[in-house]
Amino acid sequence: MLRKENTLPMTCSHCNNVGFLQRNNSLDDKSRIVSSFKERQASKNLLVCENIEKDSRFGRAETDFSNLFARDLLPAKNGKNSQCSSYWRWLTFFYTMYEKHLIDPPKSYTFTILTNFLKVLKASTWSCLKTQSPWSKSWWIVGIPSSMESEQDILASSTSSQQDWISLAWLGNGSHQLLTLTCLYEIAPVFVLMEQITLRKMREIIGWTEKDGDGIFSPGGAISNMYSIMAARYKYFPEVKTKGMAAVPRLVLFTSEHSHYSIKKTGAALGFGSENVILIKSDERGKMIPADLEAKILEAKQKGYIPLYVNATAGTTVYGAFDPISEIADICEKYNLWLHVDAAWGGGLLMSRRHRHKLNGIERANSVTWNPHKMMGVLLQCSAILLREKGILQGCNQMCAGYLFQQDKQYDVSYDTGDKAIQCGRHVDIFKFWLIWKAKGTVGFEAQINKCLELGEYLYSKIYNRQGYEMVFNGEPEHTNICFWYIPPSLRGIPNSQERQEKLHRVAPKIKALMMESGTTMVGYQPHGDKVNFFRMVISNPAATKSDIDFLVEEIERLGQDL
Amino acid sequence: MLRKENTLPMTCSHCNNVGFLQRNNSLDDKSRIVSSFKERQASKNLLVCENIEKDSRFGRAETDFSNLFARDLLPAKNGKNSQCSSYWRWLTFFYTMYEKHLIDPPKSYTFTILTNFLKVLKASTWSCLKTQSPWSKSWWIVGIPSSMESEQDILASSTSSQQDWISLAWLGNGSHQLLTLTCLYEIAPVFVLMEQITLRKMREIIGWTEKDGDGIFSPGGAISNMYSIMAARYKYFPEVKTKGMAAVPRLVLFTSEHSHYSIKKTGAALGFGSENVILIKSDERGKMIPADLEAKILEAKQKGYIPLYVNATAGTTVYGAFDPISEIADICEKYNLWLHVDAAWGGGLLMSRRHRHKLNGIERANSVTWNPHKMMGVLLQCSAILLREKGILQGCNQMCAGYLFQQDKQYDVSYDTGDKAIQCGRHVDIFKFWLIWKAKGTVGFEAQINKCLELGEYLYSKIYNRQGYEMVFNGEPEHTNICFWYIPPSLRGIPNSQERQEKLHRVAPKIKALMMESGTTMVGYQPHGDKVNFFRMVISNPAATKSDIDFLVEEIERLGQDL
Repeated sequence: MLRKENTLPMTCSHCNNVGFLQRNNSLDDKSRIVSSFKERQASKNLLVCENIEKDSRFGRAETDFSNLFARDLLPAKNGKNSQCSSYWRWLTFFYTMYEKHLIDPPKSYTFTILTNFLKVLKASTWSCLKTQSPWSKSWWIVGIPSSMESEQDILASSTSSQQDWISLAWLGNGSHQLLTLTCLYEIAPVFVLMEQITLRKMREIIGWTEKDGDGIFSPGGAISNMYSIMAARYKYFPEVKTKGMAAVPRLVLFTSEHSHYSIKKTGAALGFGSENVILIKSDERGKMIPADLEAKILEAKQKGYIPLYVNATAGTTVYGAFDPISEIADICEKYNLWLHVDAAWGGGLLMSRRHRHKLNGIERANSVTWNPHKMMGVLLQCSAILLREKGILQGCNQMCAGYLFQQDKQYDVSYDTGDKAIQCGRHVDIFKFWLIWKAKGTVGFEAQINKCLELGEYLYSKIYNRQGYEMVFNGEPEHTNICFWYIPPSLRGIPNSQERQEKLHRVAPKIKALMMESGTTMVGYQPHGDKVNFFRMVISNPAATKSDIDFLVEEIERLGQDL
Repeated sequence: MLRKENTLPMTCSHCNNVGFLQRNNSLDDKSRIVSSFKERQASKNLLVCENIEKDSRFGRAETDFSNLFARDLLPAKNGKNSQCSSYWRWLTFFYTMYEKHLIDPPKSYTFTILTNFLKVLKASTWSCLKTQSPWSKSWWIVGIPSSMESEQDILASSTSSQQDWISLAWLGNGSHQLLTLTCLYEIAPVFVLMEQITLRKMREIIGWTEKDGDGIFSPGGAISNMYSIMAARYKYFPEVKTKGMAAVPRLVLFTSEHSHYSIKKTGAALGFGSENVILIKSDERGKMIPADLEAKILEAKQKGYIPLYVNATAGTTVYGAFDPISEIADICEKYNLWLHVDAAWGGGLLMSRRHRHKLNGIERANSVTWNPHKMMGVLLQCSAILLREKGILQGCNQMCAGYLFQQDKQYDVSYDTGDKAIQCGRHVDIFKFWLIWKAKGTVGFEAQINKCLELGEYLYSKIYNRQGYEMVFNGEPEHTNICFWYIPPSLRGIPNSQERQEKLHRVAPKIKALMMESGTTMVGYQPHGDKVNFFRMVISNPAATKSDIDFLVEEIERLGQDL
């Protein structure tokens, strides 16, 4: 569901439902902190930057942000003591301090510091932010001064607010054009190291036990999937790099009919041809049917083609279905095929102990696409392609441009990532992800993902037996995709017919158009296969609440009742 | 040259050299405004947000930013009346207002407004920002409230500062995750329209006279070049899309030995094979030799290969050379080949009446890569692939995913850009570019580009005859790439020999390493062909000054004198 921004404050009044956790706080801790926060709010001591007027340039922000939760930074309906404006004042202070340091920079900032940074990054945990003195210097590199006051180190003052942390990261980026190019370690050392460490952590979460692996952040899931096909091709037919696709037998790729269109698109772009991207049948829940995969592989082999690659989807776009990865992995092993898991949408569930079983078998994949910008709430774009085997990306893409990737630099040039990418410079997508991870911790991601899934269950259970609704597929959804038809009163009780289907096909577009015109909310729809237009509600915003779901249902019924 | 951020303020004391212009101000206007600014600064009326303490939430920013120039927002050495902190206070005010509107949103904001936006965008000029009432509402869409006060509309309050405008844009983005997906018009209508209008303007500047053309913003020059090859292939061999490269004869691509490595890399990725990317000889200035191009085309044809595509570079990476586009275009016409111009680096010169002749013939190209994130100073990334003919990108890439690109929407779905991209969602790279263009105007880009070129000329003339320097190629550089060797005293006067070359090869890496360790400045180096490591100074930062150049030369001599 997309709510336009002027309706956002509506989510604010229900913020008790927001599932952010900070550090490793237990729920007890949390309620204690909330009480403490309320007390101090009552004394009006917490949210006012008291000294800011005394010295207009270097006033100190007395606010302790370390105990605030995401909702605390949302605009408040009551207006008074707005945490939002307090946050903005704090940011102002922050940049004023930054300016001060620009004018009188710390003398100790040299490249040498950077070479120690990796150790610090490695030492930091994924559960919370640490206040460590080496950070103080290191933070300069990313444009954020840490030493505002020792007792309120920026790193300890994690506000847990996804949006605000991101803005902060972007501000940092915005001030440092020089640091946004991540193809060379020397240009963006911190970001290169952050990428490396984060990718390793993600591989660990996938369950790969290899010491070394590989990966890179790319501009979106479609490009990540493109990398996976390039890697598979290079692994089995490295000669394509120099001689082209004409030099090898006809290679075929397999993906389910419910998979993302980027697999087929990439197949066309990379010179396989879209006809050589074979679509495997999915069951009524949208999950790939392994028997059909095996049959299609055998069929291709009989024709003399070479099966190369299978894409299994973890979280399909429309139904949110999870392909049976283990069974698909068995087939890939049997026929020696590259197994890619497109977990762009479902990868976030790996963070949840409750839901990660849906991706069982992913540890047998050769490559994985995982978009933190989806279920993990990182601002667009943040997509990773992860590979179990090291060296393939580099081998596949490197051109060794001497003017860029010199080998006689004063640092370990294996940190230069440019030659394994198809891009040259890249956006720093890692920084916002890293900040959010540090702010929320792994446990925070788990909580927000569980929360979204629960909201999906809430919607499902709300409309499952409600008059005027039909579900598109049977059973509880595996992801937050809730697919349903709204049947206006005029179509209820009418037996199914071509005419009724045609009328029903026009209902969702009409309701969506009315929503857009009234500007209240928005929900997507589409036809799929032989199914006429149905609504697809997808929940990935951790600030969404049950009341948002209720509102959506009310709106559908309000706008659709006379159709 | 890269200066680390703690040395940035040094550029500040010389800001008279900064070449920003705002609107269509003449130099007379400019000095008048500066005087007026100084007067008001003296009366302390300009830079203080006077009322901000009176009402902490909705204080008014009295500052008139409309007369400020880029340098005014840089941190000031004297500290007092800092425009930088004033700017941040203003931003705070801005967001406080924004919060107010969030709580009490204007009732008139509906999707209907958006459909009028195109008219407004079309009506706006490229020379300056207009204060028009429709904007007020429209600005809400991109997350920026315009109506702080009628007399100081945000659009009129253009501060001309590249960095600050960008931060502003990014802040806007940061607050609006929903608006960062530009594959669907309904998700990001303003950005989609901004792209469309800006791409049209860029095609006009290239000199294409066709009413319709095409283009898209992509994640970097390498991907833009990739699009150009895909488009060429689809134009001549559309069957590759479905049947793959194996279905067509051996296709070959041509590019110069000085061109960017992304052409070869893309050739490998798209299934041509890097061996089928034929390198054409360049002359001693780094410009492609047309006679060699024709010879290589004939050679390929003799072998039975199919010449498909020629890439001409406008601004090579190392020498900054401009290939002779007109002569190359003659050859392309003769042999019916697709002509692409990779103007990623040199495209900015199209904005300068003094320098655009270097790209003469570009109007004969079929496609152009142009990166505003290079010479035009837009924050990374901002790269456009522009095509003379409409429809090829769409035809080449569309997969018609029914769940995304429904045809029964309530608006003109030809605005949905997703199906012509190889990505699905994309970063909103257009917004920062658009804001800068509106803030500086075309004349502002021209001034800053001329300024950078002048600085390049300054460096060239400074070291051309200076003791201890040798230029890598003869004659004045065409772009801001100044390539030179620094010869330490120990190597001067020694006749050329293998041993001297080996020693010279180690000089630039050593000086760069010393620079990085001392943290003062940084300049790139590389070997090229048979030439040992040399420095390549590139100027694209409009805030750079002659004193920065002087400083660089001093540093090289200070660090290199004992080598």
